[in-house]
Amino acid sequence: MTTEQAYVHGYSDSERARLLDQARTLTDLLHWDTGYPSGSLVLEAGCGVGAQTLTLAERSAGATIVSIDVSARSLASARQRVGAAGLDNVVFERADLYALPFRAESFDHVFVCFVLEHLTRPRQALAALRTVLKRGGTLTVIEGDHGSVYFHPESAAARRAIQCLIDLQARGGGDSLIGRSLYPLLVDAGLQDVAVSPRMVYVDASRPDLVDGFTRKTFTAMVEGVGERAIAEGLIDEATWRRGIRDLYRTSEADGTFCYAFFKAVARKY
Amino acid sequence: MTTEQAYVHGYSDSERARLLDQARTLTDLLHWDTGYPSGSLVLEAGCGVGAQTLTLAERSAGATIVSIDVSARSLASARQRVGAAGLDNVVFERADLYALPFRAESFDHVFVCFVLEHLTRPRQALAALRTVLKRGGTLTVIEGDHGSVYFHPESAAARRAIQCLIDLQARGGGDSLIGRSLYPLLVDAGLQDVAVSPRMVYVDASRPDLVDGFTRKTFTAMVEGVGERAIAEGLIDEATWRRGIRDLYRTSEADGTFCYAFFKAVARKY
Repeated sequence: MTTEQAYVHGYSDSERARLLDQARTLTDLLHWDTGYPSGSLVLEAGCGVGAQTLTLAERSAGATIVSIDVSARSLASARQRVGAAGLDNVVFERADLYALPFRAESFDHVFVCFVLEHLTRPRQALAALRTVLKRGGTLTVIEGDHGSVYFHPESAAARRAIQCLIDLQARGGGDSLIGRSLYPLLVDAGLQDVAVSPRMVYVDASRPDLVDGFTRKTFTAMVEGVGERAIAEGLIDEATWRRGIRDLYRTSEADGTFCYAFFKAVARKY
Repeated sequence: MTTEQAYVHGYSDSERARLLDQARTLTDLLHWDTGYPSGSLVLEAGCGVGAQTLTLAERSAGATIVSIDVSARSLASARQRVGAAGLDNVVFERADLYALPFRAESFDHVFVCFVLEHLTRPRQALAALRTVLKRGGTLTVIEGDHGSVYFHPESAAARRAIQCLIDLQARGGGDSLIGRSLYPLLVDAGLQDVAVSPRMVYVDASRPDLVDGFTRKTFTAMVEGVGERAIAEGLIDEATWRRGIRDLYRTSEADGTFCYAFFKAVARKY
């Protein structure tokens, strides 16, 4: 991670499990319309531990996916996972988003998922990705938005705890509210036909898979993961923190609800 | 309005226009799956000025709609509108939600849209509606959630202004965050097979109809409408208010985005 901020949710083993769990639970929501034609060459920029790579390769069996990441350790993890799934249409390469080792107009399509939120210079990254995209090709960006969260029962402490996650990511130069601004970002980067669709996750007790897989094990676990740092950096006191986490878990009870939105943008280069 | 709170967004002519505009803009989002079989008798509880009645009657041409409201003035407005549209499958009746003038199990289906948020006792209202619903029939509830709003560019003043709307509605006994809690409300009221689907409105410059019809003329206009009262009641100072409204309009510019969610719940009585 030479040019990037340290990720707020680092690369622990449990974090890897979380990222993979998240992908399994949310695959349909995010990827029902992800798919590339046979013979096309697709760049996956920032593949991380391969959570999305698997879906990408499976859903575009006739395409070749070039998956890059700046972290050798993440790449190793991704390579192992994709190999274990018996997929042979992915090429892994270590590369920096800001210094792509590809010629201009190399790829038919470019795919970026859960990456821009971590970058200090998302505009510059998008410009670089646009350069390696062929004319007529598409750029797809998927990001979350931690400001899209609301829940029942309401809790000021839970909101404070979530704000710690947002603030820590901002301190590291990232933007965890980036989902809502994909449209202007892509327009700014010179892409055209920018079409953004929100992918809202709504969770209540009628969906125990989402209660467990999303509210508890994805979102609340992610907030919980920054607790020590948030308290150490003086963003919150420990009592409020504990109450916030307890109240987030409270939303996963029988009368609770939880809402979050991802944003998927597809744009074209002419 | 004998037993109800005074509506936060009263019954001025411009308000009527706003409610009707809102229905036109959002009809597809809210009602693509609204429709009742020929021969069925449907209660629309709290029809107001008839914004939804029109859609309901058009989309269920073979059904008979009984539309009630506690306000004679609203009913007159609704009757005129439905008549002008040449629809003859609606019967209007002045009635109080808490004292329905119908026998138990009178209706095949019950429909409630943008009503519960204004009520001091939504649980009691739902119980009353459940009583007049036949076994096997459905209850549909559609509500907004003013806490579901987020936008770009972010603005603390705009959030403060929106909070005034939420607080004023709460002072009147209503709950403008009710969308997210439809699931527990309906389960509590003894309904079954409760299925809630969020209907998220996402607005960017690629949708000028929504920029104008939703961000500006529906949501921002609604917030703007409570300004005098919010300042008079000391909820906000005038400078912050003005900045908040300006920042809400700012989200309707070319690089702005705006998000809001409605919730539609359909449940059955056994």
